[in-house]
Amino acid sequence: MSADRFTATYLIETAHPLEHAAQVMAGEQSAGTFMRVHGETDELRQSHMARVESIERLGRVDEPSLPGSRPPKQGEPIYQRAKVILSFPYINVGTNLPVLMSTVSGNLFELSQFSGLKLLDFTFPDAYRDAYLGPQFGIEGTRRLADVYDRPLIGTIIKPSVGLSPQQTGELVSLLAEAGLDFVKDDELMGDSPHSPFAERVKHVMDVVNRHADKTGKKVMVAFNISGDMDHLLHAHDLVYEAGGTCVMINMIQVGLSATIRLRQHAQLPIHGHRNGWGMFSRHDALGMSYLAFQKFFRMAGVDHLHVNGLRNKFCEPDASVIEAAQACLTPLWPEKSFTVMPVFSSGQWAGQAPDTYAALHSTDLMYLAGGGILAHPDGPAAGVRSLRQAWQAALEGAPLNEFAEKHSELKQALEKYGAL
Amino acid sequence: MSADRFTATYLIETAHPLEHAAQVMAGEQSAGTFMRVHGETDELRQSHMARVESIERLGRVDEPSLPGSRPPKQGEPIYQRAKVILSFPYINVGTNLPVLMSTVSGNLFELSQFSGLKLLDFTFPDAYRDAYLGPQFGIEGTRRLADVYDRPLIGTIIKPSVGLSPQQTGELVSLLAEAGLDFVKDDELMGDSPHSPFAERVKHVMDVVNRHADKTGKKVMVAFNISGDMDHLLHAHDLVYEAGGTCVMINMIQVGLSATIRLRQHAQLPIHGHRNGWGMFSRHDALGMSYLAFQKFFRMAGVDHLHVNGLRNKFCEPDASVIEAAQACLTPLWPEKSFTVMPVFSSGQWAGQAPDTYAALHSTDLMYLAGGGILAHPDGPAAGVRSLRQAWQAALEGAPLNEFAEKHSELKQALEKYGAL
Repeated sequence: MSADRFTATYLIETAHPLEHAAQVMAGEQSAGTFMRVHGETDELRQSHMARVESIERLGRVDEPSLPGSRPPKQGEPIYQRAKVILSFPYINVGTNLPVLMSTVSGNLFELSQFSGLKLLDFTFPDAYRDAYLGPQFGIEGTRRLADVYDRPLIGTIIKPSVGLSPQQTGELVSLLAEAGLDFVKDDELMGDSPHSPFAERVKHVMDVVNRHADKTGKKVMVAFNISGDMDHLLHAHDLVYEAGGTCVMINMIQVGLSATIRLRQHAQLPIHGHRNGWGMFSRHDALGMSYLAFQKFFRMAGVDHLHVNGLRNKFCEPDASVIEAAQACLTPLWPEKSFTVMPVFSSGQWAGQAPDTYAALHSTDLMYLAGGGILAHPDGPAAGVRSLRQAWQAALEGAPLNEFAEKHSELKQALEKYGAL
Repeated sequence: MSADRFTATYLIETAHPLEHAAQVMAGEQSAGTFMRVHGETDELRQSHMARVESIERLGRVDEPSLPGSRPPKQGEPIYQRAKVILSFPYINVGTNLPVLMSTVSGNLFELSQFSGLKLLDFTFPDAYRDAYLGPQFGIEGTRRLADVYDRPLIGTIIKPSVGLSPQQTGELVSLLAEAGLDFVKDDELMGDSPHSPFAERVKHVMDVVNRHADKTGKKVMVAFNISGDMDHLLHAHDLVYEAGGTCVMINMIQVGLSATIRLRQHAQLPIHGHRNGWGMFSRHDALGMSYLAFQKFFRMAGVDHLHVNGLRNKFCEPDASVIEAAQACLTPLWPEKSFTVMPVFSSGQWAGQAPDTYAALHSTDLMYLAGGGILAHPDGPAAGVRSLRQAWQAALEGAPLNEFAEKHSELKQALEKYGAL
């Protein structure tokens, strides 16, 4: 593959011959047209056509997975799945992240030749390495701001999702800071609302965080949800920064790529990427986009942390998918510019998942967010936080949790309470 | 329903009791939390909880439509579909379009109680009517700029998708202007690339368009694809405006809501909304979002034209869905501020679909885009354009195409060529 091409990998399902179906994809997403018209020369096609690099047959399915596809007119249709790799010339797109996304996905999902089509992965042209800023803080910068090393950042989510006043939010954060949390985030539903105006929330929360830092030397990282229109994103970021805050959060899918790129250019704080809405892209195994693909767009745009769900979560995602997503976040895009980000584990997390999470990742470069797993600890939130740190210490030392719990009472209590659930 | 609440309508599929499943949705997307924690009082729940307004049972399905759901632990699971309406308090969100999108969709798609969940529709709180600008030009403004009344704007797409140089693009647009087209658009894959730098493309194309306007009095509306990062969006818009252009285009899903809102604040031209990527949201009947819901977000953000596919298109979408989408674009959001936009019909269109399109819509407030249906006309592009205008004239007069074609040779030729396909 020459350096001036980039690739995209797909799962396809089709009743058409695989080679033909792959050529339809290549045509639709590059120099193709319904018929030869003015200006379309062989030379142009040679320079600009996407190429089918490989087709790997995966086997038949009994029925089409998605409605609306049109099988060939001749014979009884047989639906096959395959893994297809296409390559595209860099000059078709240039350094334009939204148009790159259109090129590797775009209209493909609607093509009538396919009863299933999912973008599994893609590569960036090398020019993107220098054209985009990528994560500003990433793993190291986040650790530096949070002053946490050699273990995951232990965090929690402000709950209830909505309804707390700025003052109540401040009181809750005070309790969480006292409990020893490294990280606290707004709910994705909490933005800038009449009952919790953003500026007031920042003021109340940062008063608490700054006082706590003055007293203890530890500044809790709070990810304020700045999601909103472009002006709000920048203004809200500045409010957090000026109040001494150390993180902002965006709902990536709802805010979108172009605004995220702009925010990154402006930002002086890590950007925490919340992926709500992701289920639309991922719930069907033959439609949408893998997280391996999705996370690359937003790393390139410049987020520093990316949600990946958690092991044994309350949502639909299987554990293997969670680990694959986290590994993707930790995999460099280029040797000299890794653009790696901190994966954020959450949903139903408590001390119990720490060993399996570490065994799968061999890394502590992550955020580990628990709600009930901290706040509902029998001995209170501080004991909840300690139980998580103990569980990660056990994981790092390779000690079984039960054994480690014999000398660590908070972990023992957690195992008794949550392990029985 | 009080004015301080807004609603969202869903198709759900679940093996859980419907009332319970709907309550899970309401809790997840408002004041709910995994367990009662500090600050969560009955009063707070009363003020902030989403409410289940109605549940309409739709019947059983044999198997779960999506993987990953968890049925109740007791008994053999029975999967039912239902239509559920939730209402949310305005104060949970305020006027924040991205967070509103998170609220009515967001994490819902991943909830393990559901083997299917699709957002069918939602309403805006009245405060959005005044907080957001909505379409600046809409139908009337677009007609004024294009100087086309009482019939659809007849348009085409610059093809091949990529590969033409700025000069070649200009030559093609010259041919299209001579042919009498009202509207021409960039392909969604064409942005700002090394082989067609945006500024050069605008220069070459607008030279042609302006010369043609000077000569004939008719300025062809060209939708230049300005998709890119935020700065590029604004800068590229300005280039088009300064060159005398009358339209810009964005890839809505890839650019995103927040940047679209910002572009609208800045724009002096209509924004043409291309929906590529939409298949991810729509291909599965029990996952994602209907276009009825989707188009509201981007109308509110401020686009003026919205792609809706076309009757008997080359993609997967059934005709009924196309018409529903177009009707949605033409349906006012409020009596005093309609925020209506021009639906854009495309994909496999030629003269033949005009009567059915008009019969379904009872309106000519639309763009009607054809590629081969114009360029491959036996008598050339000008005859292709005339055949489309004749077909719409026939539709408006209620005359069958075959009959009308007796006195309109270009339509007759079109029927012979494309009708036989």
